[in-house]
Amino acid sequence: MKRGHRTGKPKGGYPRLYGRHAVTAALANPERVIRKIWGTRETLGALELPPVLPIVYADVADLGRMVPNDAPHQGIVAEVEALPDIWLGDVLEQGEDNTRPVLVLDQVTDPHNVGAIFRSAAAFDALAIVTQDRHAPPESGVLARAASGALEIMPWVRVVNLARALDEIAEAGYWRIGLDGSANEPLGKALEGSAKVALVLGAEGDGLRHNSMAHCDMLAKLPISPRMESLNVSNAAAIALYAAMNR
Amino acid sequence: MKRGHRTGKPKGGYPRLYGRHAVTAALANPERVIRKIWGTRETLGALELPPVLPIVYADVADLGRMVPNDAPHQGIVAEVEALPDIWLGDVLEQGEDNTRPVLVLDQVTDPHNVGAIFRSAAAFDALAIVTQDRHAPPESGVLARAASGALEIMPWVRVVNLARALDEIAEAGYWRIGLDGSANEPLGKALEGSAKVALVLGAEGDGLRHNSMAHCDMLAKLPISPRMESLNVSNAAAIALYAAMNR
Repeated sequence: MKRGHRTGKPKGGYPRLYGRHAVTAALANPERVIRKIWGTRETLGALELPPVLPIVYADVADLGRMVPNDAPHQGIVAEVEALPDIWLGDVLEQGEDNTRPVLVLDQVTDPHNVGAIFRSAAAFDALAIVTQDRHAPPESGVLARAASGALEIMPWVRVVNLARALDEIAEAGYWRIGLDGSANEPLGKALEGSAKVALVLGAEGDGLRHNSMAHCDMLAKLPISPRMESLNVSNAAAIALYAAMNR
Repeated sequence: MKRGHRTGKPKGGYPRLYGRHAVTAALANPERVIRKIWGTRETLGALELPPVLPIVYADVADLGRMVPNDAPHQGIVAEVEALPDIWLGDVLEQGEDNTRPVLVLDQVTDPHNVGAIFRSAAAFDALAIVTQDRHAPPESGVLARAASGALEIMPWVRVVNLARALDEIAEAGYWRIGLDGSANEPLGKALEGSAKVALVLGAEGDGLRHNSMAHCDMLAKLPISPRMESLNVSNAAAIALYAAMNR
């Protein structure tokens, strides 16, 4: 399942997770290496922390300076290593005997949205989230907080070439549905009759790139009012996952 | 439809909208009073602005200081008056001959989430959003940006007493479905057989208050994996609206 831990300090520094939900989920994840934890006496006292972990007591103001824009840290910040890489082939093998959907994100870069998508993907039992190595946000406190623990349990496959990954997904028996506002077919119809689906979503505004569309079996739209151009991408993903799981 | 414009400067100052989408939507809304606009020459040059509007040219750094946490202003900021109040009775009358859903938010306070909910509500042609006057965010730049223009087109009814509003909604012939993770009935089932529905959502974590639940005709859940406690509230709202519009 693993390509091994990345070695050495990452370029942008180690990810810092914050907030009780994100940090306790990281503590519960055997794959997650936690380097250090800072927290208030009150918050740390309420947690069961592994005795080997370096812990620093800090006050609320110090913690506020450790997170971007005074994000809601809830009294705890953890510096962690990024999770081990996961191979697409391994994930697809795990999906062999079930109909859990695969979610593919084409250049969705906003960490709030990607985090919220992780949360919905875990809630609707998706098999994995697939993104490009570039043009996807790194693991971060913002993403982890929006994911509300899901970053630790939802397999995240990062690939170099999304088109090639879409081919590999098709070979594994998935029907690849690209979400596109200008498609004719509503998503509900597109989902009929295919047991295994991969849902492919692009960024807001730009949508799916042409090459990604070309590697879908079908394009479908969410039926929305002409008054609005589009939905927020995490809301679109949540609806698509719900529709796929409730056929 | 209107209770009249609020008079005098509001306590927290006038709302400041930013970003091209939010500001152009405000300009297109005849109900919206715009007090002043700041923008870069480039952005303002590309817009058709009413000649009576006070305009100040500003550079990107100045604009950055006018919005919270260097929010993405895209070269334009507008100071506006809050929209005129809207009566629940007027909105329900408009819904008399159709089955557009009403969305009721019980103490959902995060402006990003409320803004995203506005966007989905407009996309799925909801009749109105109903919130309590207190425990709901005011109009703001953050909310308007997340709403992506929908703040200007989706009627927002603020009521003093949510329980009384839910009674009024029932009297108008709506079946009130409260979303609650511990309910037995899945939402899809709950939506069967009732033409007019009001979807009632509570805040993440706390959920619906008891008194709000007591004023619903039925509680229903979104069928999610036991691995996750809940969905993001804007994602839950998007799914509920999609499900209501695609019965």
